[in-house]
Amino acid sequence: MDVKKKFGDKIKKLRLERGLSQEGLANEANLDRTYIPGIEKGNRNVSITVIEKLAIALKVNMKELFD
Amino acid sequence: MDVKKKFGDKIKKLRLERGLSQEGLANEANLDRTYIPGIEKGNRNVSITVIEKLAIALKVNMKELFD
Repeated sequence: MDVKKKFGDKIKKLRLERGLSQEGLANEANLDRTYIPGIEKGNRNVSITVIEKLAIALKVNMKELFD
Repeated sequence: MDVKKKFGDKIKKLRLERGLSQEGLANEANLDRTYIPGIEKGNRNVSITVIEKLAIALKVNMKELFD
């Protein structure tokens, strides 16, 4: 599976486990609200600084986003 | 430490362990030769697709790049 889609699925899984909406996650991660749907669909080629923001917002180590 | 610099240090460490030059790693990863120095210095905000290419070239799982 494409790495962007795999990453998006992981973000969505963790977000739902935490009971966050896409907008809630965007707020926690200081990302634009419109950015999360594209990430979860695998349309965004996220950068390492965005990956870090998502990890912090989801309270996991960065490596856990690649399990 | 900045996530880009931490990532760059890890790439350099693994590259040297494998006895690869910066150019050799660029070739293995199908990246432009000039790209690796910037990554190792922490100047590049690498994307998830580039992270995947580096992991494949260094023969590690992506998560190991965030240890």
